[in-house]
Amino acid sequence: MDSHRFDADVYARRLAAAAAATAEAGLGGLVITPGYDLRYLSGSRAQTFERLTALVVPASGDPTVVVPRLELASLKGSAIAELGLAVRDWVDGDDPYQLVLAALGGPAAVAVTDSMPALHLLPLAGLLGVSPVLATDILRTLRMVKEECEIDALRKAGSAIDRVHARVPEFLIPGRTEADVAADIAEAIVAEGHSDVSFIIVGSGPHGADPHHSYSDRELQAGDLVVVDIGGAYEPGYHSDSTRTYSLGEPDAVVAEQYSLLQRAQRAAYDAVRPGVTASQVDAAARDVLTEAGLGEFFVHRTGHGIGLSVHEEPYIVKGNDLPLTAGMAFSIEPGIYFPGRWGARIEDIVVVTEDGALPVNNRPHELVVVPVP
Amino acid sequence: MDSHRFDADVYARRLAAAAAATAEAGLGGLVITPGYDLRYLSGSRAQTFERLTALVVPASGDPTVVVPRLELASLKGSAIAELGLAVRDWVDGDDPYQLVLAALGGPAAVAVTDSMPALHLLPLAGLLGVSPVLATDILRTLRMVKEECEIDALRKAGSAIDRVHARVPEFLIPGRTEADVAADIAEAIVAEGHSDVSFIIVGSGPHGADPHHSYSDRELQAGDLVVVDIGGAYEPGYHSDSTRTYSLGEPDAVVAEQYSLLQRAQRAAYDAVRPGVTASQVDAAARDVLTEAGLGEFFVHRTGHGIGLSVHEEPYIVKGNDLPLTAGMAFSIEPGIYFPGRWGARIEDIVVVTEDGALPVNNRPHELVVVPVP
Repeated sequence: MDSHRFDADVYARRLAAAAAATAEAGLGGLVITPGYDLRYLSGSRAQTFERLTALVVPASGDPTVVVPRLELASLKGSAIAELGLAVRDWVDGDDPYQLVLAALGGPAAVAVTDSMPALHLLPLAGLLGVSPVLATDILRTLRMVKEECEIDALRKAGSAIDRVHARVPEFLIPGRTEADVAADIAEAIVAEGHSDVSFIIVGSGPHGADPHHSYSDRELQAGDLVVVDIGGAYEPGYHSDSTRTYSLGEPDAVVAEQYSLLQRAQRAAYDAVRPGVTASQVDAAARDVLTEAGLGEFFVHRTGHGIGLSVHEEPYIVKGNDLPLTAGMAFSIEPGIYFPGRWGARIEDIVVVTEDGALPVNNRPHELVVVPVP
Repeated sequence: MDSHRFDADVYARRLAAAAAATAEAGLGGLVITPGYDLRYLSGSRAQTFERLTALVVPASGDPTVVVPRLELASLKGSAIAELGLAVRDWVDGDDPYQLVLAALGGPAAVAVTDSMPALHLLPLAGLLGVSPVLATDILRTLRMVKEECEIDALRKAGSAIDRVHARVPEFLIPGRTEADVAADIAEAIVAEGHSDVSFIIVGSGPHGADPHHSYSDRELQAGDLVVVDIGGAYEPGYHSDSTRTYSLGEPDAVVAEQYSLLQRAQRAAYDAVRPGVTASQVDAAARDVLTEAGLGEFFVHRTGHGIGLSVHEEPYIVKGNDLPLTAGMAFSIEPGIYFPGRWGARIEDIVVVTEDGALPVNNRPHELVVVPVP
């Protein structure tokens, strides 16, 4: 094993659990093309697109990996060899979908990974004769409920991004651009132990009002609020994601008041987390605080998203999601308020559900971080 | 307009042509999620995954863009606003597939982009009541046959990667690792005018025998052959892709002889290119040279792939592809020979089909590049 994946027994357990869940759903198998599900089930980071690579997990019997001969090397570093999975390679001119069919033991109702592209899904569905369903539904519980080794990775990632946030004030100097700040943050994300930068948002002044702003050539100005939402991947591939809002100089009284309401909303969602509570109840806990204060219309997105091998995964902390939380789930709590053309603010931590409530993965203070300006 | 896309009239023409091709195929519309087709048709680089963004092009009537409200900003920089396309935004809790249905004017047989993930394809197909087909078939001719502005971009990208290859010998010093060399190449790819590095293969010694090797910690040694296959994106997003093989010191006589056969094979494919010749005939031209010399079994992949906004796209220069070439098609010609555990070699140029034959986009010499070693 290397740092890119867990020990092979982790994947053996996951494959067995996935096959059992597939059988329980009355399906014949899972067909998993490259992406997070493949990485979750096998430790493989294969990234083929046009040529089919697929892990086929029949409901009963042994899994098979279908792979272009050219891409056999892409399986290196995965647990596939160590687990002794059957590998069926193919060359240009062969029909790889027939190999999938054979690995399933014939036409069957299957579940496919979320990211399977139409390029492969449509010919496969044609051959199977039954429209596939999403493997999300089969793998949901497995992937949502984190094992100890995964929680450990998330906590290490969380500590690393906390160390980056601790350094952000030194980057925020009026006259520097958001892109300048983003470059410093990118360097810090890696320097603090991540293997990769996943995303960087530096939303200053009016840009803070766009929740999905990245960064721009806008120069920071005294008086700006700056939303800094950053994350990276931490080996073996688990993500950090944390937002803090910074103020270049003391904020005015209205901003300070509205920010404190946001802080209360974030805390309310955090306090609501425990096994049995639904995702939508956690969303409502944050939203109600802001709605009661007349700020509900400025909180334009869901309260959070699950996190693990992917930055956004289940469970989604959103209105209408009646999924009850269970111990081991990991997700963000990140309410925000956005005043178009003026400013925005967001507070985001990742938490893990425990029997006793939320365990925070991030531990930086939640207060608006006031950065002195000359 | 900016350097990230062409003028809006380019996209207006493409949208009209796509609608016409859709009607001609007897389909009700195209549904295009983020990816190369979206960029081709609208100049948009949106990259949303879990929340649906889709360009809906009905066979008759006006196109509509369905987009999460949070991602409205992702349309900036595209031609969507300038073209006055209808934009239907949605928020968490809405059903975006219903918006697609409305934009189509009701249930219809549609074509979807190759990369549409199962996550969106399965619910959309369920709603439409007809299994979609691949938009590749509709957009194939449009995307394969490059316009002048695209050929110009490919030629600029080709010149840029040629300048990188001109610098590669100075990077190849025994004792340096493939990864050291790759880092230098990455810097050179950007320094020579690309906006992004797309891929870097530095396959030294036995690693050269793996066509899809990337790079490793292996140290270069005197006597190594080194396959260097590199490419980047050049604004507005067209790719370079060129391979040369380097020899650290003079090659032995057998290697030199086999390399010269490879060079003849590459030239034979180049000479075969003209309108009306099929893709498979071009593949055969290269393959026959190697087969006749007893090296056919060591040429383990197709001769080439189309290139443009994506690094790999149609036309594929492969056995069985009876597509006749037409002027404006752009693709690689890249035969290789691979001796597992020992060495490999490949020569790759991008060419554009003209009425007079192949126009090379890359213009570095094809000889084995002998790098003197101390």
